Amino acid sequence: MVASESYDDLLAFAHRLADAAGEVIRPYFRAENETEDKRPDGSYDPVTLADKEAELAIRALIETDYPGHKIYGEEHGAEWGDQFTWVVDPIDGTRSFIGGFPTWGTLIALNDGGRAVIGIMDQPVIGERFVGTPDGAWLNGRPLKTRPCASLSEAVLYSTTPDMFEPDHDLPAFHRVEAQVQMRRFGGDCYQYGMLAHGLNDLIIEAKMAPYDIQALIPLVEGAGGIVTNWEGERAEMAGRILAAGDKRVHEVALALLNG
Amino acid sequence: MVASESYDDLLAFAHRLADAAGEVIRPYFRAENETEDKRPDGSYDPVTLADKEAELAIRALIETDYPGHKIYGEEHGAEWGDQFTWVVDPIDGTRSFIGGFPTWGTLIALNDGGRAVIGIMDQPVIGERFVGTPDGAWLNGRPLKTRPCASLSEAVLYSTTPDMFEPDHDLPAFHRVEAQVQMRRFGGDCYQYGMLAHGLNDLIIEAKMAPYDIQALIPLVEGAGGIVTNWEGERAEMAGRILAAGDKRVHEVALALLNG
Repeated sequence: MVASESYDDLLAFAHRLADAAGEVIRPYFRAENETEDKRPDGSYDPVTLADKEAELAIRALIETDYPGHKIYGEEHGAEWGDQFTWVVDPIDGTRSFIGGFPTWGTLIALNDGGRAVIGIMDQPVIGERFVGTPDGAWLNGRPLKTRPCASLSEAVLYSTTPDMFEPDHDLPAFHRVEAQVQMRRFGGDCYQYGMLAHGLNDLIIEAKMAPYDIQALIPLVEGAGGIVTNWEGERAEMAGRILAAGDKRVHEVALALLNG
Repeated sequence: MVASESYDDLLAFAHRLADAAGEVIRPYFRAENETEDKRPDGSYDPVTLADKEAELAIRALIETDYPGHKIYGEEHGAEWGDQFTWVVDPIDGTRSFIGGFPTWGTLIALNDGGRAVIGIMDQPVIGERFVGTPDGAWLNGRPLKTRPCASLSEAVLYSTTPDMFEPDHDLPAFHRVEAQVQMRRFGGDCYQYGMLAHGLNDLIIEAKMAPYDIQALIPLVEGAGGIVTNWEGERAEMAGRILAAGDKRVHEVALALLNG
């Protein structure tokens, strides 16, 4: 850990990264001819030029201002540093993006060598910036707090898509939890974590997540009073299968169910 | 049909209805304690006070300015007129609304006794108004056009939730189409029809729809060059099972597959 004044500087810098990414991305949203497939096998995995260019803009700023920091990104290579690593995904929710839905986000996390300590989820088209730090969580400067939820029967469960679950083991585990909640909804992307921090849902279950998909969201949910782990109940920085909750009680029950 | 100058007046009035609904609804979005269950059996069907109050605001304006027109709404009764009926749903996508996602909409249609001739889908929080008439379709005044799509293998398919399909017949029919498309995504609500008109998806398949869920969206999709029918290929005003497409060619293929 470094002195808190340095964290203020780093948080201000994280805002600058989000501003720069938004400038690059905004003109591409709902524009034509900006998607391409990236997988050699021809399966559909759209990535936009916006995503690539925004990551380059973020990298350029980091390399200038913090040349000792490492960068872990989706598009242009991933490296872990001994101390500070910026973990970035300029467009989380590429399917929302190319479908014209304003519920994708720019994810920017600062990892201190063990934990994600600063997280930003920015929606530059509608002007919403979610921020999490060890001191709290905010949407456009207004504090966020998760809501209480003692049991699955009261819980609203979100997940991006059932397609993310491995069918033999993960999907049945998801179904065990799904069967007991008040409501389940698909289609969330990073936005559902912003709404979890906002106290508007209770539980998020996902799988096949990469570190850049989740690290920015950990300080956000934790800063609002929630909890984010993997399905083993460990810290979620290394991603994989994710269980996030606004209330530790419902997290505990869901974790037990996921594990049989 | 009445003279086109009257349609201009009616369109201007439809905008006033959307303005009035937005004024009522905005303060309730992401606010606390504004949901309740409405089904006597205790199943979860959240409806907000915002929905009810906005429908009352819409009704008051119609009763004052067009006392001869009928009103077909979700919350406060439904009547069909011989000539003009306003078909309204102040918050389509109540689950998006209570989940804090800005992808619900205020739906306002004018039905001329047979067809929906004016449709508005308004998103008052992020300031997006989609409008359709026999003369075209617009988002905040900018013309919208569906995109070409000749076959299912190129098509992006949207649907609000798989839960809307009756399991024995409708769900297998949906799966037949789903298996052939490029991408399928859940979680759309009315917003996915706005994006269909915008040329950002190709196909929407839904079921268990009410007239107030679809009528505003018919002029929007048709005005942008698309097509909306039920699964029998008939006009969709009476709702039920819906098949909407941006291109008649992919509509035809999907319709055949839905019917075996």
